[in-house]
Amino acid sequence: MDYSIKSINFHKKYRGKIEIKSKIKLKTKDDLSLAYTPGVGAVSTAIGRDKTLSWELTNRANQVAIVTDGTAILGLGNLGPEAAMPVMEGKSVIFKEFAGIDAIPLCINTTDTEEIIKFCKYIEPSFAGINLEDVSAPRCFEILDRLGKELSIPVFHDDQDGTAIVVLAALINACRVTGKVIKELTIVINGAGAAGIAIARLLLSQKPKNIILLDSKGIINKNRKDLNKYKIKIAKKTNNRNLAGGLKEALIKADVFIGVSKGNIVSAEKIKSMNKAPIIFAMANPIPEIMPGDAYKAGASIVGTGRSDFSNQINNALVFPGIFRGLLDGKIKKVDNKLKLRVSLAIAYSLRPSKEKILPLLTDKKIVGILKSAIIKNS
Amino acid sequence: MDYSIKSINFHKKYRGKIEIKSKIKLKTKDDLSLAYTPGVGAVSTAIGRDKTLSWELTNRANQVAIVTDGTAILGLGNLGPEAAMPVMEGKSVIFKEFAGIDAIPLCINTTDTEEIIKFCKYIEPSFAGINLEDVSAPRCFEILDRLGKELSIPVFHDDQDGTAIVVLAALINACRVTGKVIKELTIVINGAGAAGIAIARLLLSQKPKNIILLDSKGIINKNRKDLNKYKIKIAKKTNNRNLAGGLKEALIKADVFIGVSKGNIVSAEKIKSMNKAPIIFAMANPIPEIMPGDAYKAGASIVGTGRSDFSNQINNALVFPGIFRGLLDGKIKKVDNKLKLRVSLAIAYSLRPSKEKILPLLTDKKIVGILKSAIIKNS
Repeated sequence: MDYSIKSINFHKKYRGKIEIKSKIKLKTKDDLSLAYTPGVGAVSTAIGRDKTLSWELTNRANQVAIVTDGTAILGLGNLGPEAAMPVMEGKSVIFKEFAGIDAIPLCINTTDTEEIIKFCKYIEPSFAGINLEDVSAPRCFEILDRLGKELSIPVFHDDQDGTAIVVLAALINACRVTGKVIKELTIVINGAGAAGIAIARLLLSQKPKNIILLDSKGIINKNRKDLNKYKIKIAKKTNNRNLAGGLKEALIKADVFIGVSKGNIVSAEKIKSMNKAPIIFAMANPIPEIMPGDAYKAGASIVGTGRSDFSNQINNALVFPGIFRGLLDGKIKKVDNKLKLRVSLAIAYSLRPSKEKILPLLTDKKIVGILKSAIIKNS
Repeated sequence: MDYSIKSINFHKKYRGKIEIKSKIKLKTKDDLSLAYTPGVGAVSTAIGRDKTLSWELTNRANQVAIVTDGTAILGLGNLGPEAAMPVMEGKSVIFKEFAGIDAIPLCINTTDTEEIIKFCKYIEPSFAGINLEDVSAPRCFEILDRLGKELSIPVFHDDQDGTAIVVLAALINACRVTGKVIKELTIVINGAGAAGIAIARLLLSQKPKNIILLDSKGIINKNRKDLNKYKIKIAKKTNNRNLAGGLKEALIKADVFIGVSKGNIVSAEKIKSMNKAPIIFAMANPIPEIMPGDAYKAGASIVGTGRSDFSNQINNALVFPGIFRGLLDGKIKKVDNKLKLRVSLAIAYSLRPSKEKILPLLTDKKIVGILKSAIIKNS
């Protein structure tokens, strides 16, 4: 089914997807006097004396900012902040529907690393957390690192943290279904932007046999002179045999393909060059690197994509509502590697996986509670 | 009635006053495919090609940012951004209830003029307008001027524009009731911050006999050496007789007192020193400059305050919902003096005024439509 025209008409009809709702009624003079002046003066005075009361007397404790500069929207690239809004409104709707969180999209008109960091610092008093979104690499690495250190509310970059968590969960369950063992696998990750680097970093904690990472220039290895500092760092920990070349060379005798790149770039021949019954996560949006039917025909054992309309959807929307519910309710300030691993395991072991269902559905409302418990109980 | 404890308990109970609501349902995989990936990709692509589509395909056209640094909260002063949130949530609730506008409070952690200007520029792609709020003078004058020139969405500073508009409307109707004529009046404005200066500027367009403006050091006159550039400018157009001294000297034989300063600073004696049957707008919040009962006892003809619990509430909440509804629906980019005068007249002539009702009630839902028409028809 083609969702393009249908979705444009849908967005035109509703004029976007979110609105503000009042929690209180406002009909009489007395309602106004309580919610606004003069009553509100005492509330502001109380918070002025003790800022921690902003967590009790305003909506802050349940409020997350979704901040993006629109430079890496879905798989579509740099379309600018206006174009990011439909995606961010979609995230906001998911936040509310699944986790009851009030998430406010702020699509901003600067791509400068320092300015984005400052922007997030400026809005800190209004929010309980920040969900960075669709900020292109390599700026997103520095922004996330710095904000993690410099803010006192949790900061989560969906395209890094969220994607890495859900991919690890999917891989754990693909292994449970196929009987493969992560420590014995050669994993090819195509795409070395926010998602690719973050996936590699988290998978490394599971000590796979080898990870081969590719960017738009080909396989990342220790000889390349055109790498940014994040790629240089990951090159030291991946590509054991210091392979060079392109996707074709990388996939030969590999066990797992993880695509966070562009649509239609993996042919049936490439799948056939992999080890027997490979695991294929073709996560480019909206068009996957290879369509599931073609991948299965070429011998794949398990195929996942980023989309809602195929089975095995591997999408960070499975992660961000529950992780923020846990961070907010547990008053947890930092998203570290241990927390990410716990969440991956909680997702994986929330179901008995099968070939066509390695992950819970995005529409499964139990997941938020499961992630929340995993985060809070162990923190 | 004391609203303080009642209002704190009310805010604690609801944990603030606003939340996000989804305009759409999100139950099935198909809902997700339309609202989020893959469908949303076509919507983002369309806006990426033509940014003006963000007004049709997202909630932007109905979305206003309420931006404050928390330096001039109500009459309470600089309590910081966290303490501003209850007031801004109150504004947001009023925006929604009366004008159907989705207003998002952003209480920010910088008081630097240039940084606040930049902040507003950064959020422009996400909003249809900006409502500045509770930013202290004199920074607010430069911020509003610059944003008016540098942004392509309308910017309105409630404490300047909103207060000036509603005070002029109240004065027009106080004159209709008492038979006084603005051109013959000596008007004392106590407070030369955002509201005081803006009120003086707008009242000057009605050519009163004299305006005497006071700041915390006393009457503003041409001899004072301690004035900022905004006060120097207004000093040239006010205080005809170049009076010096304090509030006591200013009020002798004045016809109108407009207080945008501090509670309990006008005594019965001062009212008695004014011309016969003076008009008293004691608008300090939450405690007025003089309580209405005391002012009437001392001879006032008409008394107004900023509060919901007395009659004649003179509060910019009467203005901002309707003015933004008009600006948004009329796609009007600038809030100039002519527009402000039109709005004042529309408010004044929306009712047949009486001593106890010189302005429509804040709870009167007709006002938004009246202001909207006044703004759009004449633009």
